[in-house]
Amino acid sequence: MNNAPVVSIIMGSRSDWPTMKKAAEMLEALEISYETQVVSAHRTPDRLSEFAKSADDRGIKVIIAGAGGAAHLPGMCAAMTHIPVVAVPVKSSALSGLDSLLSIVQMPKGVAVATQAIGEAGGANAGLMAAQMLSISDELLCERIKRWRKDQTDSVPVEVE
Amino acid sequence: MNNAPVVSIIMGSRSDWPTMKKAAEMLEALEISYETQVVSAHRTPDRLSEFAKSADDRGIKVIIAGAGGAAHLPGMCAAMTHIPVVAVPVKSSALSGLDSLLSIVQMPKGVAVATQAIGEAGGANAGLMAAQMLSISDELLCERIKRWRKDQTDSVPVEVE
Amino acid sequence: MNNAPVVSIIMGSRSDWPTMKKAAEMLEALEISYETQVVSAHRTPDRLSEFAKSADDRGIKVIIAGAGGAAHLPGMCAAMTHIPVVAVPVKSSALSGLDSLLSIVQMPKGVAVATQAIGEAGGANAGLMAAQMLSISDELLCERIKRWRKDQTDSVPVEVE
Amino acid sequence: MNNAPVVSIIMGSRSDWPTMKKAAEMLEALEISYETQVVSAHRTPDRLSEFAKSADDRGIKVIIAGAGGAAHLPGMCAAMTHIPVVAVPVKSSALSGLDSLLSIVQMPKGVAVATQAIGEAGGANAGLMAAQMLSISDELLCERIKRWRKDQTDSVPVEVE
Amino acid sequence: MNNAPVVSIIMGSRSDWPTMKKAAEMLEALEISYETQVVSAHRTPDRLSEFAKSADDRGIKVIIAGAGGAAHLPGMCAAMTHIPVVAVPVKSSALSGLDSLLSIVQMPKGVAVATQAIGEAGGANAGLMAAQMLSISDELLCERIKRWRKDQTDSVPVEVE
Amino acid sequence: MNNAPVVSIIMGSRSDWPTMKKAAEMLEALEISYETQVVSAHRTPDRLSEFAKSADDRGIKVIIAGAGGAAHLPGMCAAMTHIPVVAVPVKSSALSGLDSLLSIVQMPKGVAVATQAIGEAGGANAGLMAAQMLSISDELLCERIKRWRKDQTDSVPVEVE
Amino acid sequence: MNNAPVVSIIMGSRSDWPTMKKAAEMLEALEISYETQVVSAHRTPDRLSEFAKSADDRGIKVIIAGAGGAAHLPGMCAAMTHIPVVAVPVKSSALSGLDSLLSIVQMPKGVAVATQAIGEAGGANAGLMAAQMLSISDELLCERIKRWRKDQTDSVPVEVE
Amino acid sequence: MNNAPVVSIIMGSRSDWPTMKKAAEMLEALEISYETQVVSAHRTPDRLSEFAKSADDRGIKVIIAGAGGAAHLPGMCAAMTHIPVVAVPVKSSALSGLDSLLSIVQMPKGVAVATQAIGEAGGANAGLMAAQMLSISDELLCERIKRWRKDQTDSVPVEVE
Repeated sequence: MNNAPVVSIIMGSRSDWPTMKKAAEMLEALEISYETQVVSAHRTPDRLSEFAKSADDRGIKVIIAGAGGAAHLPGMCAAMTHIPVVAVPVKSSALSGLDSLLSIVQMPKGVAVATQAIGEAGGANAGLMAAQMLSISDELLCERIKRWRKDQTDSVPVEVE
Repeated sequence: MNNAPVVSIIMGSRSDWPTMKKAAEMLEALEISYETQVVSAHRTPDRLSEFAKSADDRGIKVIIAGAGGAAHLPGMCAAMTHIPVVAVPVKSSALSGLDSLLSIVQMPKGVAVATQAIGEAGGANAGLMAAQMLSISDELLCERIKRWRKDQTDSVPVEVE
Repeated sequence: MNNAPVVSIIMGSRSDWPTMKKAAEMLEALEISYETQVVSAHRTPDRLSEFAKSADDRGIKVIIAGAGGAAHLPGMCAAMTHIPVVAVPVKSSALSGLDSLLSIVQMPKGVAVATQAIGEAGGANAGLMAAQMLSISDELLCERIKRWRKDQTDSVPVEVE
Repeated sequence: MNNAPVVSIIMGSRSDWPTMKKAAEMLEALEISYETQVVSAHRTPDRLSEFAKSADDRGIKVIIAGAGGAAHLPGMCAAMTHIPVVAVPVKSSALSGLDSLLSIVQMPKGVAVATQAIGEAGGANAGLMAAQMLSISDELLCERIKRWRKDQTDSVPVEVE
Repeated sequence: MNNAPVVSIIMGSRSDWPTMKKAAEMLEALEISYETQVVSAHRTPDRLSEFAKSADDRGIKVIIAGAGGAAHLPGMCAAMTHIPVVAVPVKSSALSGLDSLLSIVQMPKGVAVATQAIGEAGGANAGLMAAQMLSISDELLCERIKRWRKDQTDSVPVEVE
Repeated sequence: MNNAPVVSIIMGSRSDWPTMKKAAEMLEALEISYETQVVSAHRTPDRLSEFAKSADDRGIKVIIAGAGGAAHLPGMCAAMTHIPVVAVPVKSSALSGLDSLLSIVQMPKGVAVATQAIGEAGGANAGLMAAQMLSISDELLCERIKRWRKDQTDSVPVEVE
Repeated sequence: MNNAPVVSIIMGSRSDWPTMKKAAEMLEALEISYETQVVSAHRTPDRLSEFAKSADDRGIKVIIAGAGGAAHLPGMCAAMTHIPVVAVPVKSSALSGLDSLLSIVQMPKGVAVATQAIGEAGGANAGLMAAQMLSISDELLCERIKRWRKDQTDSVPVEVE
Repeated sequence: MNNAPVVSIIMGSRSDWPTMKKAAEMLEALEISYETQVVSAHRTPDRLSEFAKSADDRGIKVIIAGAGGAAHLPGMCAAMTHIPVVAVPVKSSALSGLDSLLSIVQMPKGVAVATQAIGEAGGANAGLMAAQMLSISDELLCERIKRWRKDQTDSVPVEVE
């Protein structure tokens, strides 16, 4: 992508990248510029604070945040910026992401995140949801999304094998 | 609201209204025009189809959908329109909304919804998330959200009682 | 099978076939004609609508629907036709099919599905339940089911290894 | 109902009746004759055996069985007769019916039940599913079901309150 | 074992044997005579009935029953005999035995089983619990159990590796 | 009861008594002498140790232990005596006894308890299971249990209300 | 308390006070000076940051943090200070605190919290654990804790009612 | 370590060592002397009692206890000593450590443990939490912890791969 990023994909650990890469791939398919970064709510809280507070000035329009276990990154990021945060619960080793999901989705009134499914499907859909948000004011992107959706529909085979 | 609605709040049953009303109240606080409607994925599938396919033409920019139990409304609505769908898992009688949450959030790759918390907090945050999505291209709304967030922050008492 | 199908096996994705194949095998064992088709509630909602609304005219008497995760296919299919729908929760990657099960079984009053166990046992039993439904008015099939049940009973060894 | 019953509603305890009554009401609405009986798999296993083995001779076409907790009634009944068994997980006091649901739905390959939702919605849908099964070979009933479905659809209000 | 069996180990399927074998091994270690048999509550309900009703006459003093999924064997066996039933929830493929556990343990008032842990630990402990029951009136066995317990205690190393 | 107690009912807290009273009532119905005592594994570990180690000498044949939450009483008691321990998971305030159940039932190989259902049904069945254990060597008790079971069976009404 | 506080009790909302008050009461019983404050990780992230970073300078030795739902307060506080954080999962309305517990306890390697039970028992024990931490270097406090423990043990009645 | 141990790491079984080793490694990194020992609450209750009651005299300041399944070790240890106990729920084979977690964390009021995450992350954090407790009165250790935390923060890469 040559353009300045409008979406920022952050994750709590490098081990989240295989999941979050799906978001990146979706954004690429929809021709949306993005950046990626490891930001750990727990191990790098200051980096998170700087990231969240500077995102608007850097032109970021949507943040995609993925984390696993006691997954505080999406909610804490949303606490620090008015930019919409799309959240991906990464599958955890002991509880298969149920902990990640509940840690992310059960936000109190007043600070919202847009939670996706656990794991790679959620990663891809985070990219799609970010695109849909941006498409509210971007007709060309809206057309690309519609076309992507039509292609997806057309690609579903009728035969079972 | 005098303006044509830009957000549509739908729900599977009248019994979901106490939860979804929180979304309406949030939109009012942020001066966003909205409409409300009962649309049951199961009992009125044609109404859902008509709703979803006409929403774009009617100027709807974001859909907020709430449902409980085997909560198919948000996902099926998202299957039928490229407009972003914010989803609210309504608390169910037997399983307290865990069924609603899993039915809503575990969407497969390719059709995304923006899931909020179970119950009234999720209802309110659905309104907030819809506003955040719209604010990407609406600076005045963006300012109202920032002010609302600041007011919220300022209103948190330090004393515990 | 030479005869026109009376049972239709649908599934949300080709990846569900190993599970749903067990339904096909059971129908074959009981000499019931069937068809198979991939129909995704989320990725091909129009195909689902066409399928559900034409099934009666095409002579389908029972529908078997399998899906995983936010498994909306059985319930949405049941919303669109009066033909009985037997449902199979396919084992999902993160939550082992608990999400599939709750998404399928927790239907609201007024639209019913006949839910089976998670995974291959449920797949096979979906074929059996479809056969039992058809046997209400088909004495020969009823005899075949009774014989199949007797054979199954006889085949359970007493010795543990 | 004047006619000989074609559906038998059984339940493990009188305390299940408020749930199972919803099945009876649905059958009445669809003009299907039925009988009701308390049959406890655990406290009256012989009654269950006699019930299951005589049901066919007594002209029963579909059995609806409801139970809570370690809910063995539907599965054990299905083990003893080829007649299709529709199952209702009754809401239990400690685990809200999750135990009932898993005890009922997770049947092994070879003996199937048609599981409905936990509690009263499941009770009503058990009546509906029984009716759908019978309607495969009963055109008049099929019409009554279609009309009932249409009435249900028409009765869903658009306004949220 | 040369003696007539006093404990009977039954299981719903041959696939449960690796788990239930641990019960057999424990009984052997404690010099208790036992028999083993596959008895499926669902696929061989008559075999179960015959087994349960004849066990007393055959001199069986304790029954150990293992099953997985919708595990009805222990509870149904306990419904048919006053002999104490020790139950083993076998680990299931989708839900890891949580379904087996709840199906077995949540028995209604009036019919009891003595539930052990999920899987092999539960299998072994079923043998131990059966022995403890028998030891109430068997001083020699009581001494063997005490010795086995002491040996177990002594065999726990202090060093971690 | 005039006789020396053969069953000891212990519980972690006075608040467990309403649940454990059901065990006492069952023992009374079956004419078995018992004692009751509060013994907290956590708050009175020495009392537990003394209780467990003296039970045999005092003529106790079966111990019934109930506890809630992190319910360590049954397992720790079983660790300290060869006397069989019947366990009752008391319903807890936050997790409805699921924590109590898992804390009690998931014992490691080598120390067994006989776990009953969560709550009052489990309380009553603990008394029944204790009686069944004792009846292995007590023909008169065995007859009383059979009669109690027959009365229970006869008392189940056929009519649903 | 006249002394400068050595323990700080923080909570995400005033509604958490009934739970957290139990911590305060325990600290009072053990004569430990404390302060209380509402600090919301989501609604007042800057207040949290200031609180956490200044706690050491203000002489705080242990922090007790309670929160419910997507409970990020304890973990985020621990991310911002080396002072030990004792965490209390507050019972939430939909999921009874299971979400609070998993959000709090499943911390990644490198940032630890000392999690207590859900609800009021956890609140009280948070005070106790804080005291135990402080007692490592405070012999007088250590004696007070021992006495409190002894009093607790002595106060457990033997009689069940 | 040459010094007398101030932390004692105990575990219910040698199979817990891979998890608990992470605690040992953390203590080594922070230059804290420790000892390790297998102590099974169930298989060696007397060893536990001796361990717990002598720990203070032997100079132990913090105990780290890990166990899986019905994990009674941490809570029972805490019942027997005023020394703070840090608890690690070891991942169990059937329920992935959910049973371990609930068995450990849901302690009743009056006996507290400091619960960490399930598995290896929890193991490591147990070492860290023990260090934090000790650092309250050990400025040099406090500095080492701060440095360790800073190093950890610095070592988090920004790039995702």
